[in-house]
Amino acid sequence: MDDKLIDLLVDKISEKLNESQSFLVEASGRHVHLSRKDIDALFGEGYQLKLDRYLSQPGQFVSRERLTLVGPKGVLQNVVILGPERADSQVEVSATDALTLGQKVPIRESGNIENTPGITLVNGNRSVTIDKGLIVAQRHVHVAEKDAAKLNVNHGDIVKVKIAGENRSLIFDDVVIRVSEKFATVMHIDYDEANACGFTKGIKGTIVK
Amino acid sequence: MDDKLIDLLVDKISEKLNESQSFLVEASGRHVHLSRKDIDALFGEGYQLKLDRYLSQPGQFVSRERLTLVGPKGVLQNVVILGPERADSQVEVSATDALTLGQKVPIRESGNIENTPGITLVNGNRSVTIDKGLIVAQRHVHVAEKDAAKLNVNHGDIVKVKIAGENRSLIFDDVVIRVSEKFATVMHIDYDEANACGFTKGIKGTIVK
Repeated sequence: MDDKLIDLLVDKISEKLNESQSFLVEASGRHVHLSRKDIDALFGEGYQLKLDRYLSQPGQFVSRERLTLVGPKGVLQNVVILGPERADSQVEVSATDALTLGQKVPIRESGNIENTPGITLVNGNRSVTIDKGLIVAQRHVHVAEKDAAKLNVNHGDIVKVKIAGENRSLIFDDVVIRVSEKFATVMHIDYDEANACGFTKGIKGTIVK
Repeated sequence: MDDKLIDLLVDKISEKLNESQSFLVEASGRHVHLSRKDIDALFGEGYQLKLDRYLSQPGQFVSRERLTLVGPKGVLQNVVILGPERADSQVEVSATDALTLGQKVPIRESGNIENTPGITLVNGNRSVTIDKGLIVAQRHVHVAEKDAAKLNVNHGDIVKVKIAGENRSLIFDDVVIRVSEKFATVMHIDYDEANACGFTKGIKGTIVK
């Protein structure tokens, strides 16, 4: 084979390999997860969140209910509640939202809410003030257990992910890998990050070594 | 020399090299540049913008005057005007701002405003509607001519820049290099990008090959 043919083959093979190692990227807007106790307080004893639409993660859904977040300096209205209910309430906002609320908010992995600030949640004339759980979510890739070997990653790995957005390609470092048999393989970033990488719906990410 | 010593030397030397090849990163908020004609219309014939403070780029300054931007669906108040005046008015916003205004805004290099949308600028009871010039600024590094060789870049190059922000390190691709004897060597990103990379004041960027 001549050199050109070899180059062509290498290009085609690596393109194919990259394709199989890429995954969908989704931009998550601000949202709230609620505990049973906080649903009771905000919507009434035993209230069940109503399904609006399912999300890419199996069983996770956008509910029809909305809440208002009240921070020290500002308010965010019409904030989505995701179901199903969780052990602890958690509020995920962007760094831009944190500025609007007037609250310093740490970047945390979902569920890791020790020593995070609280916030007041309002539904009409009912309200709850949680004493922790307000975070900026660390960018992460949900990896289905069956895909972990193919992507060559383990739960807890910190990786770099390349996103080829229009005019704004970038490589996110500090991306945490979360592996579970309950997950679909999808990367989640917030709206600040989506804006910074030229996000469009259906865009793919690829882990770079 | 033994292997450990060599490794240590390589680490120390590359650290030193990286240091000399790094530059300050600044986050630019939304701002307006105005032509003489538009200053006349918004502030009166022959009006001179008043200096508030100088910026890192020699001669460029934040003025004391502010404007309101009126888009199809929303308004941004108290927007900074940068001086001195330019040949063409130009309004630089973030993708988040574009959403607030309700206007699709392209990512463009400063000055490249053909076929960009216009916007209405308001100062009290005076207003001007520009027919083009509304852009999301492409991330860029201003490079002083004397630093271009050291950084191994030429005007117009598209490079990758690593930013080691807290918990949110990333590598921006599609960064344009602008070389001029009038520039100080500083990288400019917008607030979306600043939020995505864990920006803090004084943070440095490094070109990666």
